[in-house]
This record gives sequence, C-alpha cells and structure tokens, in this order.
Amino acid sequence: MTHPSAAAPAGTARPRERASLRPANLGTILRLLRDRGPRSRAQIATDTGLPKPTVTPLVAELVGRGLLREGPARREGAVGRPGTLVHLDGRGLAGVGVEISTSYLHLLALTPRGDVVAEHREPLAVAQAGPGAVLDRTAAVVTDCLDALAGDGVRPVGLTLAAPGVVDTVNGTVVHAPGVGWRDVPVLAGLRTRLGAAHPPLALDNDAKLAALAEYFLDRDEGVHDMVCVTGERGVGAGIISAGQLLRGATGFAGEVGHMPLDPERRPCVCGRHGCWQGMVGLDAVLRLAADEGDAPHDPGVAPEARLARLRERARDGDPRTLRALERVADDLGLGLALLADVLNPRLIVLGGYFTHLGDLMLPRVQEVVRDRVMAPDAGGCEVRLSALGFAAAARGGAYLALDAVYRDPGAYGER
Amino acid sequence: MTHPSAAAPAGTARPRERASLRPANLGTILRLLRDRGPRSRAQIATDTGLPKPTVTPLVAELVGRGLLREGPARREGAVGRPGTLVHLDGRGLAGVGVEISTSYLHLLALTPRGDVVAEHREPLAVAQAGPGAVLDRTAAVVTDCLDALAGDGVRPVGLTLAAPGVVDTVNGTVVHAPGVGWRDVPVLAGLRTRLGAAHPPLALDNDAKLAALAEYFLDRDEGVHDMVCVTGERGVGAGIISAGQLLRGATGFAGEVGHMPLDPERRPCVCGRHGCWQGMVGLDAVLRLAADEGDAPHDPGVAPEARLARLRERARDGDPRTLRALERVADDLGLGLALLADVLNPRLIVLGGYFTHLGDLMLPRVQEVVRDRVMAPDAGGCEVRLSALGFAAAARGGAYLALDAVYRDPGAYGER
Repeated sequence: MTHPSAAAPAGTARPRERASLRPANLGTILRLLRDRGPRSRAQIATDTGLPKPTVTPLVAELVGRGLLREGPARREGAVGRPGTLVHLDGRGLAGVGVEISTSYLHLLALTPRGDVVAEHREPLAVAQAGPGAVLDRTAAVVTDCLDALAGDGVRPVGLTLAAPGVVDTVNGTVVHAPGVGWRDVPVLAGLRTRLGAAHPPLALDNDAKLAALAEYFLDRDEGVHDMVCVTGERGVGAGIISAGQLLRGATGFAGEVGHMPLDPERRPCVCGRHGCWQGMVGLDAVLRLAADEGDAPHDPGVAPEARLARLRERARDGDPRTLRALERVADDLGLGLALLADVLNPRLIVLGGYFTHLGDLMLPRVQEVVRDRVMAPDAGGCEVRLSALGFAAAARGGAYLALDAVYRDPGAYGER
Repeated sequence: MTHPSAAAPAGTARPRERASLRPANLGTILRLLRDRGPRSRAQIATDTGLPKPTVTPLVAELVGRGLLREGPARREGAVGRPGTLVHLDGRGLAGVGVEISTSYLHLLALTPRGDVVAEHREPLAVAQAGPGAVLDRTAAVVTDCLDALAGDGVRPVGLTLAAPGVVDTVNGTVVHAPGVGWRDVPVLAGLRTRLGAAHPPLALDNDAKLAALAEYFLDRDEGVHDMVCVTGERGVGAGIISAGQLLRGATGFAGEVGHMPLDPERRPCVCGRHGCWQGMVGLDAVLRLAADEGDAPHDPGVAPEARLARLRERARDGDPRTLRALERVADDLGLGLALLADVLNPRLIVLGGYFTHLGDLMLPRVQEVVRDRVMAPDAGGCEVRLSALGFAAAARGGAYLALDAVYRDPGAYGER
C-alpha cells in the first residue's frame, strides 16, 4: 500500500509574515543541509524552491556566520564542472539537554552537526533526594558544563531540561510526576535562581517527548514520519510524532500512556488510580515478577542497568521465573502497544529506557502480540524495535530542541 | 494556562513550488472567507500576508468564477468610507457525501457556503444485504442525486463515501468492517462500475474520520484545534484532529479505538479478539444491559433512533434496569475517553452516533469519570460534549472533503 497524504483537507488560512521571510529562508536552507546532507547552491535552489539569486547571498551569510562551510568539490559523474558543496557547520554552537530521571542525571551538549561536545552522567535517587537537592545538583552539573563550553569557545544556544510525568512547558513546572513524588514543582524557576545571571535560555519538557524527538532525528533518513516512542522506567511514557510533528495536544500533556487502564486485575498504581499499564510493564513490574523482595535485582543502591544485567544473566541461564516474568511483561507490553497502533497507526514504535536492556529478550513475543491484536492488516505496517539511544534519548532530544533556536533565527547566531 | 505551540521543532525543509503559488493563493483567500467570514480586500491582504496588488486580481478571478461575490458595504464605526465586503459564494458547486452505515444510507450535498442542496436517508440492513446489494442501492441513490443537481444547474465537484471499519483510502477498499461483516470489499471500484461514465471524482474514507472533519468545521469558530470525535453505533470508532489536521497515521488506519482491550472480563468481540471497548460501550452493549432478548429495544426491524427513544422513556420513568445500564455504560465510556485524553490531550471530545440519542443521560457521569481518571490537572482542559450532528456527521464530513478540491485548485471550478 502506498502512503496516503497525511495532510487534512481541513485547515484555516495561515497568514504569512512578509517581514520574516529572510530568517525563514535561512532556516529552510540550514534544515535542508542538516536533514539531507551537503549539496551545491544550485541543488539548494532546486530543493527549497527558492530562486538561485536569492540562495547565493543567503548561503554567503550562513557561511559568514560559521553555520555553513564550503566543502571539497564533488564531481557528479564524468561530465561537467565539479560544483562546490555546502556543508552544515556551526561548530561554535551547542544545544544542551539535561535529563532528570528517576534514578540519574544526564547532560549532553550537541553541535548542530550532532557532535557531542560535553556529556555527564551520574546516579541520583531523585524521589529520595527531593526537588531542592536535585535542583542543586542539576545547577552544579550545568555550571560545570557551561564553564567547559566557554573554555572551548563554544556558545550554548539553549538548555532544555527533561523531566518525567505531566510537565507544564509554558510555566516550566512539573505538575505531577508520581514516579518521583513531585507535584507542582517550579523546576525552571528553581534552576534559574541557582544559575544566576549568565545562562542560555532555559526550557522544560517531558522526558518521553524529548526522547521521541531524538529518535525521530535518528530515523529521519528512513522517511518515517509517524512514530511512537515508549519509554520504560518506573513510569512509562510516550512521545508521539504524527505527520512529522511532535503531538503535544491542546495543553501539552499528550503521551500519558502509563496509566491506560489495561490491567484486568485493576491493581493500585502509584498515581492513586487502579489498573494502570505501567504497573504491568514498568521497571518495578519486571523486577517484582522476576525476583523476591531482598533479592539483588531490587537493590536500590545498584544502578538499574546492573540490576537488569543480572536479570539477563538469569534469563540466559534459563531461570524459569525470570523467563516467565519476561514473557508476561512482553504480553502486556504488546497489548498496550497494539492499542497505541490502533489509535495512532504509527509506522514505527521505538522502545526506550529499560526496554533497551531487556527488550531483545521480549521483542519477538511483543511483535507477535502486536501483529495479532492490531485491527489493520499487518499491524497497519507498524514495526516495533528497540531504541539505539537507551537511557540517553531524553537528554539528546533536549539538546536538539535547544538547537532549534538556531534554525528559527540563524541571523542571531555565529559571527558575521 | 496558555496554549503552547503545537508545532514541533523537528521537521525537514519543505520545497516550495513557485509555479503553484497562484492556485495556492486563490485557495488561501477562499479558506479565509470560509473560516472567518466576509471581509474587505484590504482585510484579506492583512489576514493572508499577501500584497494588496496581488489580492485584487485574485479576488477578481474568484468573483468571475462565482466562487466569491461582492456583498453589501459595511460601515466600520462612524468614520471612514464604507468598504465593499467580499463573501464566499460557489452556489453553483456542491460536494456530495454518502454514508454507508450499519443500519442506513445517508446522502448529503453541500455548497461551499454549507447550504444543503440535496439530502436523502433510508434504512438499510447492511450486514444482511451484503456488499453487492448495498452498492446497487448506493448507486441508485447517487444517480438520483446527480440528476437532481444537474436539473438545478449545480456541478458536483466530488463524492466521498463514508464506510465503517478499517478503510484503505488509496485503493478505495473496506479492508475489515466486522460490524457489517465486510472484508476486502472494493467499494469504490464497485460504485464506479455501477455509475458508468458520468460521475464526479470518487473517494472512500472511514466514517469516524469524516464525522470528525464535520465536527471540526462546526467548532472552528471556537479555536479548537485538538479534538477527538467518538462515534458509537454497533462499532465504536474515532476521528482525531491534532493541531488542526486529521490524524491519519502512516497508512491511514488511525482512530481504531473500538478494540482497545479495556474490558477486565475479556469478553469476546465480533472482531475475534477479547475485551474490546466497543463490547462495553457500543449500541449492542447498552441494549443488552437494558433489555432482554425479544424485548422491543432489540427489534432489528425498528430504526435505532426509535429503539433508543424507547430506552429514553424507560429512563424517564425511572426503570431501574435502564438506569443501571446507562450508568454502567457511562462509567466504561468515561474510562476509554480518559485514556484517549491522556494519550492525545484534546481540547474537546465530541460524542456522536447513538450517543447523541442517550448521551445527555450519561454525560454528567462520563465527565466525572474523565475528570477523575485523566492524569493532567482538570483533565488537561478537555471538555466532553455531545455532537450536534448525530448520525448525519459522516455524510457531512464526506461532502466537506469532496469540496476540498475547490480549495486546492479554485481555477478549475466555476465559470470564467
């Protein structure tokens, strides 16, 4: 089956601002080179639909600002003059992403070309520490990073904090994150106070949404524009990309999949409700099913990866309880993913978080359940795979989101 | 809380075709007048961002084609010259929508201004009749309509068929509609053969998606751009509008909400699966809960509206079984709607189909369950209401979709 248009016939007229055409055109050229690789000025004109005489000075401005650079000439076939190719650059700029997870703090700074220029990861028991101590630690990690970037002559264009749960992006508040016990925590204001005057623009977003942005960037070569990224930790969340856009919903709260009432036994959840999906497929569920209280995989002093590695070993050794636990979680994971595939019809479901550490043991069964359960033939063409980014996805997505400022108004960045 | 931007930072460069600017600009002007009402040429220039000297000949062309007309002048306040207002017209054109439901056939022809120029409705037991007989009847109804439009000098610009279940819009096939027992029925090819040579372009789409388009048009004055329309008949489906666009998914199958596995008793469903939501909240569920087999509400020879009216009477008279049935369905409806609100964060959920006939009796309880169950505060701002269109929504959405051809290329329509 071919790909029907994702565009709806509905839609109101969108006023175009003539005054803003130049930044928009600069951004269009930058995005083209980011998403589809180096090309000649003539090719840029063809691909953007902009007249060649318009492209030439725009490229010159972007080269002057260090956002593009002229690369080695490439001879296309045997005939014709070799054309100079223009490449994405921007090595003097970085976007910073910081994830406050339930169990660690992770910072990543990326240049527009995707090079990692700073990274830091440390375990942090967020629920136990409480918001104040977590923000103290976050501010310290951010300050170290900003100092390091300054030392390397790299300008941070923005910083996005990733947090679990229901996040109010406008006010910078974690509204409700039952996994860490936070309610109405003004995270951005807290960080702003701690950082003092000198910091780049700050933003806060939901971890699963940022992870989805990172996965979407990674898979954009495949032409996938409808995907769902399901992130499993203690809580389970999703970031949804629909027709190439992050689906936020009316007030930014879309993607709360962890509390879908799929448990027929209607067991209580940390959120206060009953029967939530994350109680069936979250990290606590697999640990509870696989090991008794007091057994090594439950040790909160050990990093989740190490605890999951322990379960992997047991599965490899054929431990029946571990195998049964993985089978049960795979069934329940497949059930919820099939629901999401029925509602959203994604081309791709990416499993992130703890699923990347055990998912290969569950994936065949998950895929089978999805194929059986989805209404559309062949699961509507939906593929389920594991994230290549694992626990690093949310910070990476935060860095991408921060870099977006450069694409919105390239004229404000780089030297001239 | 204010409305965060629905646009994602992600997204590839979209090439613009310079050659196609004129039809696009004509369409932009038409949509503006459709969505935001009559206005002066100067106001059109401001609202579209097009230069005034560009707007004047475009409006002249649209007036010449009968798609716009000059209306009475309106004096804005006491000072200044009254400006001539331009109105949407197109009275010589119509889009046709035809719904093949489980229990009726419904045709509606609409002008671009939304005037109904043809309508026909007849009961039809679709499952019993089988695809061949249903298409015979559909072709007869369409032929009558096209003859009537020709007699009135109205040109049909397109016809959209609405069908239940999983629909392949590209090939014009109903892939799987368990409610009527259809599988891989080439509906468009069948209708095309029966209509012969003279008919407008034909399309096929899912009934719930078309109903959502109709609801979206109806509510567009309210600035609602994220909504879910849940249609209840024997089957339950949804049309999702996200950031002003119909969410179709990767292969057009999004919105299959009827088979979400929410029933803790995991009862069998017509689709062959177990535990499907439509078994809890579909028309059959409310009838089964409210009345014994053989009781009047089950009579398949009576139109669903009349059977539902019977239940209304019993509820009004305080019949305990009927009241318990409505309460139970309201609880289960709220549970599934809360799930959709968690995943999609719509501003509005509209209940259509049979819900419009009983929904007022269930709505307070449904709203309460949604408020309690959704993770985001105040249900993420989500309001639940009943459709004003009822069983007529899908045909109306089909007519709107057919009319979209006029907005895509106004130069191909009307006289010149």
